[in-house]
This record gives sequence, structure tokens and C-alpha cells, in this order.
Amino acid sequence: MTDRKEVVIIGGGFGGLKAAKRLTGLDVDVKLIDKKNHHTFQPLLYQVATAVLSPGEIASPIRRILSRSKNVEVVLGEVKTIDAEANTLFLRDGDEINYDYLIVAAGARHSYFGNDDWEVSAPGLKTVEDAIEIRRRVLLAFEVAEREAILTGTHEPLNFVVIGAGPTGVELAGAIAGIARVALANDFKAIDTGQARVILIEGGDRVLNTFSEDLSARAKQDLEDLGVEVLLNSFVNEIAPGKVKAGEEWIDTSVAVWATGVSASPLGAQLQDEVDSAGRVTVNRDLSVPGSENVFVIGDMARFEQSDGSLVPGVAPAAIQMADTAARNIRNDLEGKERGEFEYHDKGSMATIGRSKAIVEAGRLKLTGFIAWLAWLFVHVLLLVGFKNRLTVVAEWFWAYLTRERSARLITGGSIELEPALKFLKPKADL
Amino acid sequence: MTDRKEVVIIGGGFGGLKAAKRLTGLDVDVKLIDKKNHHTFQPLLYQVATAVLSPGEIASPIRRILSRSKNVEVVLGEVKTIDAEANTLFLRDGDEINYDYLIVAAGARHSYFGNDDWEVSAPGLKTVEDAIEIRRRVLLAFEVAEREAILTGTHEPLNFVVIGAGPTGVELAGAIAGIARVALANDFKAIDTGQARVILIEGGDRVLNTFSEDLSARAKQDLEDLGVEVLLNSFVNEIAPGKVKAGEEWIDTSVAVWATGVSASPLGAQLQDEVDSAGRVTVNRDLSVPGSENVFVIGDMARFEQSDGSLVPGVAPAAIQMADTAARNIRNDLEGKERGEFEYHDKGSMATIGRSKAIVEAGRLKLTGFIAWLAWLFVHVLLLVGFKNRLTVVAEWFWAYLTRERSARLITGGSIELEPALKFLKPKADL
Repeated sequence: MTDRKEVVIIGGGFGGLKAAKRLTGLDVDVKLIDKKNHHTFQPLLYQVATAVLSPGEIASPIRRILSRSKNVEVVLGEVKTIDAEANTLFLRDGDEINYDYLIVAAGARHSYFGNDDWEVSAPGLKTVEDAIEIRRRVLLAFEVAEREAILTGTHEPLNFVVIGAGPTGVELAGAIAGIARVALANDFKAIDTGQARVILIEGGDRVLNTFSEDLSARAKQDLEDLGVEVLLNSFVNEIAPGKVKAGEEWIDTSVAVWATGVSASPLGAQLQDEVDSAGRVTVNRDLSVPGSENVFVIGDMARFEQSDGSLVPGVAPAAIQMADTAARNIRNDLEGKERGEFEYHDKGSMATIGRSKAIVEAGRLKLTGFIAWLAWLFVHVLLLVGFKNRLTVVAEWFWAYLTRERSARLITGGSIELEPALKFLKPKADL
Repeated sequence: MTDRKEVVIIGGGFGGLKAAKRLTGLDVDVKLIDKKNHHTFQPLLYQVATAVLSPGEIASPIRRILSRSKNVEVVLGEVKTIDAEANTLFLRDGDEINYDYLIVAAGARHSYFGNDDWEVSAPGLKTVEDAIEIRRRVLLAFEVAEREAILTGTHEPLNFVVIGAGPTGVELAGAIAGIARVALANDFKAIDTGQARVILIEGGDRVLNTFSEDLSARAKQDLEDLGVEVLLNSFVNEIAPGKVKAGEEWIDTSVAVWATGVSASPLGAQLQDEVDSAGRVTVNRDLSVPGSENVFVIGDMARFEQSDGSLVPGVAPAAIQMADTAARNIRNDLEGKERGEFEYHDKGSMATIGRSKAIVEAGRLKLTGFIAWLAWLFVHVLLLVGFKNRLTVVAEWFWAYLTRERSARLITGGSIELEPALKFLKPKADL
């Protein structure tokens, strides 16, 4: 047994989990290390941020997902250092773990392009904690306004600003507009929640720019129908508590959310001297790191140029496909076979806009409106396979859809200091 | 409209909510003030602490519960001062609210009998945040042990200590034993979670001492069958990070929970010079405060002696019945009728022990075992009326029951610093 190879996987996202499952049953010992105990189903994180779903419904314990993988152990820990020459990595508290093979799938965080102080005023949405914090701010903003209106007869305007019109930004803006106009409307008596402004700011000239132009235009129209104001060609160049500067204009802001710019895990820079501007490691055709053939980098951390010159996008299907290739290449090594090259199969993409609209593009297939939303729903239910709670998630969705209710409207954590109205834009609590 | 009386209710627990509902439609304007945006269904809080239910399933937005009460406004805020002579109260940030009638239903917190520094090492269970923190510690303890076992081959013993064998303590101890022996057993590969000790420490000579002696004895037996060690006549006289001193013995402790001692909201002391040792206000027969007949104190904050000399217990049904009396007495005032006196109707009590056992006592009726658990289940489902999610809660319960799964096993917040093993017993995060 002592000659069994040790494989270490860093990260329990889509890529890391898939790699662990692909290595299950092989003649290797696998350790999967993550700093969270749970896998987060990121495509639905915006539904936690907007109080439709509970955190537990989109997060599942990693060790439960892998409980039947007898040769996979799950370790809760944060990797600080990778010594690729010594085939060793170190956890934050100094614990040392050796490996024969390493698969690095530590993902990405949002990037503030050097303005990290903006995060306090405009948090991003990558983790369950992020989602709880955004939910807290959004719900508190309405509470603050209601209290102000009850006690003084008037209130500061409610302005929600979402920065970046990629899928996350579009989904968030649509969902916040939905909260304001429908879900909360009957519960607030002193304010008219429907008067809240939702402003989506995008530096490019269209929303969802990975889709074709006509779908972008349709998505913009759908957003505007929901009451979202879409500002295109507009760059945010300053953010301060309670305000966001877009171009030359300061916008008073109750809650701002950062939904643009990602930056790969800093672990990449330990593997390659020159990572790209997004922090990604340029990998070999077999996904290994040049100079460290026993180390693979996959998912959002990997920079892989396709034969047409375009980069593989940082999406869940790409991470899953890369995990497949990396695991297969380890098996090939063990079996004395030649490694295979990675090839990305784009199965299309989809984004949802509000409660019942979406856009879908797969090759020549283009869907919009309700039918696209049904397709989106169907695919995401399928993707939830492996999650024990996929039935309850669907039940919650349909409940929200039918009743226009928000079931998870919980403000937890932080303080409820409300005076001045924007005081709650304080540094993010250690949630 | 200007001569409509203003009624202010402090607290959105069982008492405050019931009072608001009873005042709905009367010729008064009502403001309900709470420092949380949600009502917490406390009887099921231990199920959040032990990862069976999600926080959103046992908490519901107060303003949604009262959305149809047109003459009731909900204010998110923390009352700091009551000036009963001026009929005015002040919120934490200085906002001032006047009233004609005041109903104080601010409940109780746990009391450490002057040792408030114990809370860091042994948090209590009164709020959703408390439950999330206890869940975090319990789940982390298993993670720490697993990681230690993977990296070193051995691990520190897992000892869970629950202090106080009232209903909350008994429910928690039973549920933690259930987690260790069943729910987590298959997911951990390096440790045997069933070896974890669960120790329930009680100062009195039996568990659940508000029940008759034979039921107490049965509950103790049920607990021991689940693997809980019950220490009776044992006083905790010191608590430090990682250890609890019971009598003369120090017990190494992975996680400690405080489930004994309650102390009424400090607002009571602003209404009466001499509150009792538990901080309660001694109220008149009509539940008003001597000297301030327009102020009512109800629920856990009220000390009310019954004709047989016993005190009304601090339980949800008593709070609800008191709310009824206080609201009716306000209506009587408005209608020029005489006020009525409060009378407590004890409908019996129940406590659950682990996954499928309970005890029930109502007058001469005594139930134990599975049939008592079914009765407990039935009553709590009924009690959840008014909660939109009572169906999903029941669905989650049955899922947990059938699959022995834990659906809400999320560690959020705090840090995952694990070295030394007990380092996570750090001051409670600002959740």
C-alpha cells in the first residue's frame, strides 16, 4: 500500500469535486482540501443574496458529496504555500502535506482592479457569506427607509447599484427589482418599495456581452421592463460609503454590489512567475504546469488558449471538463499511457433575467423569454444532481414563483445601527 | 384621526406578535418595535444548532406576519430607554417614540449568574445567530478531529458538554448525540464520530424537573440510550476555553453550550425599582405595571403569582395568553369597560429527546416514547401556523427522519484556524 500515489486536490468547487469523483476507485489516495466545509452552487448564489433561497439549499457539505469515494479524504484547511519542487504544500497553520500529483482548482475571487478599499462599500458575490451580507444590506435598506418614513414622514431615496452586466450582475439587478416591485410591496406600509431605483452600470456597450448582439438587446429590454435602469459605456471610477461615481456623476447609493472583474486565486503565482493579468496560470495542452508536470491547474485559475485563439471561459462546464482531463491524465500516467490534450466543448450559455425570463444561446439555437427561462430552470435542476436538496430547491422556487413570496428574508449578523441611514455600509462583518 | 390612541409594542416574539394581532382592526395605531427583522420560532432553534433545519425555516419576517394588520407598523430598532412618566421611549440612536399604551414583551436572554465571560466558551441558544454559532462550533469540532487524524493518525477526544437539563439542554444533547452516532457517521473516514462523548450537566437531581418524577426518569433513560452521559447534582463552577469544571472535575471540552439560567430584558429595571432575581417585573392582576397603568409587561419579563402561589412559567403559551389579556384590557379601556384579570391556563408541556422520543404531560395525561414524539410533532406543526414555510419545515423534518441526513450542515462565519485544536473557541464572531 505504501507505493500508492498521493493525489492532492485544492478546492471543492465544480472542478475539484469532479476531479475527486473521477479519481474515485483508482489505485491512488486522494486528499481534497478546501477552506470551506461546503461546496457552493455558485449559479444560484444570487438567489440567496435576494432572499429566495436559504444558504443551506445551495450549499452542500463536501464530505457528504464524497462520502462514497472511499479513497478520497476531505481536509478542512487553507493552503498557504505550494513548494512544487519539493512536492509539498503547507496549510495556514503550518501543517505539511506531500503529494505525488497536485490538482489546483482554487477558483477566483472578484477583483477591484487595485481598489480593494471599494469592497467595503460594494461587496462582490462569490461565497455564501457574501450572499448573506448582500441580503442583509438589501433588506436593511428597505427597513431603514420604512423606519425613517414612519418616524419623520419622509425617507432618503432607495437606490440599488449593481456594477457589471455579466450574468451575475444581470441576475442580481433583475432579482432586486423583483423584490422591490413585487415580493416586498405589501409588507411595507410607510414606503412605496416600487419606487426604489435599480441601476445596472456596465463599462461595455451591451449587457451579457458573451451572447450575440440580438440576445443582449433583448436582455436589456427585459431588464428595463422589470424597471432596471441600464447604463452602458459607463465606467465606475470611484466608490465611497453611500455613493458610486459612474463617469462624472456621483450616484447616491443605498446598496452597491460589485459584479465585474475576477482574479484567480493567488496560489497561481506560486506556480508560475508570469501569471496573466487575471492571475491565471498558462497551462500545457494536458493542463499541467510547464516545468511541473505532476501539477495540474484547472477551472478559473487556468489560462488555456483554444485552437481558434480564444481562451476557455471561466465557467462551471469548463472547470468540469478540465477536471475530467486532469484526472484522466493522472490515470494515463499510472497505466503508462500517453497523456491526452484538453479540448473544450462549449455547450452554450444561458442567463436569467428576473422572475420568468432568460436568454439561451447554444450554437445556432437562441431562446428568449419564458421558454428560455424554462430551459434555464430545467438545466439548473439537472445541474443540482448530487445535491441532496434538489427537490426542496425546486419546491422553494415554485413557491416563490407562485406566491411571489420571499422565503428567506432574514437579516442576521452585523448591527442594525441605522443613523445616519447609510451607516450600515460599514466594514463587512466577520460572518 | 388625531385622537386615535398610539399603542407601542416592544418585541416580536410570541407575546408581541399575539398582542399586535389582537389589536388589529381596533381604533388604535400600533407600532411594533424589534431589533431583529424576524420572529424566531424558539422551540425549534435547537434544530438549527444541530443542522437539521435552516435558519430561514424557523424564522419569518415580522412585517410579513403582520402584513395584513393595516393599523400595525413594524419598526426595526432597539429600545434603549423607557420614560414611563413622559410616555416616551428612545431608540438606540436617539429616535423618540411617544405612546398612549405600551406593551413590553422583550423576553429574556440566558444568564451566566454574574460570569458573563463564560459566554465566549459556552454560548447560549436564544437567537438565530446563537444557533448558527453553535452549529459552526459543533461541525468544526468534527472537522478539526478528522483533519488531525488524517495528518497525524490520532486526534484529541471529542467531548460535547451541555450545561442545564431543561428542555433546551435535553433537546440539544439528544440531537448532538444523534449527529455523532448517525448523521455524520458515514461522512468521516479517519475518525469514528460515534466515539464522541455528549455530557449533560444538571445542578438538580433530575432532568426536565418541571415534569413529574417518572417522566424525568424516563427522559434520562432515553438520553442514556442515545449515548448521552447525564451528570445530576453537578454544578458548573468554572468555564474556560476548552474546559468546563463540574464540581471538582475539569472536563476537556470540544464544544460547550449553556442551557440554564434566564434573565429578563434589562428594560424591566427601567419600569420597576425592584425587579426579581431573574430581572422580571412584578405586574398587577391586569398585567399592568404598578404606578404605570398604561404600561403592560408580558411574557418572560413578567412575574405573575397565581392563586396557588406558583409563578406563571416563562413559556410561549403563557406569553401568548398574557398578550391576549393585555390587548383586551386596552380595548376595555377604550370602550370604558373594566379591565380583566389575567389567568394562566396550563395546557401541559412536552419535550423531545433525540430523533423519535419525547415526553408529554398535560394534567393526568402522560405520554412517552414514539407516541409522545408524534404528539410533539403534531403540536409543533400546529404552532407553526402563520409561518409560510410550515410545509417545507415538515418536509425537511421527514427527510431528516427518513434519511438520517442533516441538510443544513453549513459552517459559515468565523475563521477556520484549527491549531491548536480548540483555537476555534474564540470570542463569538459578530455574526
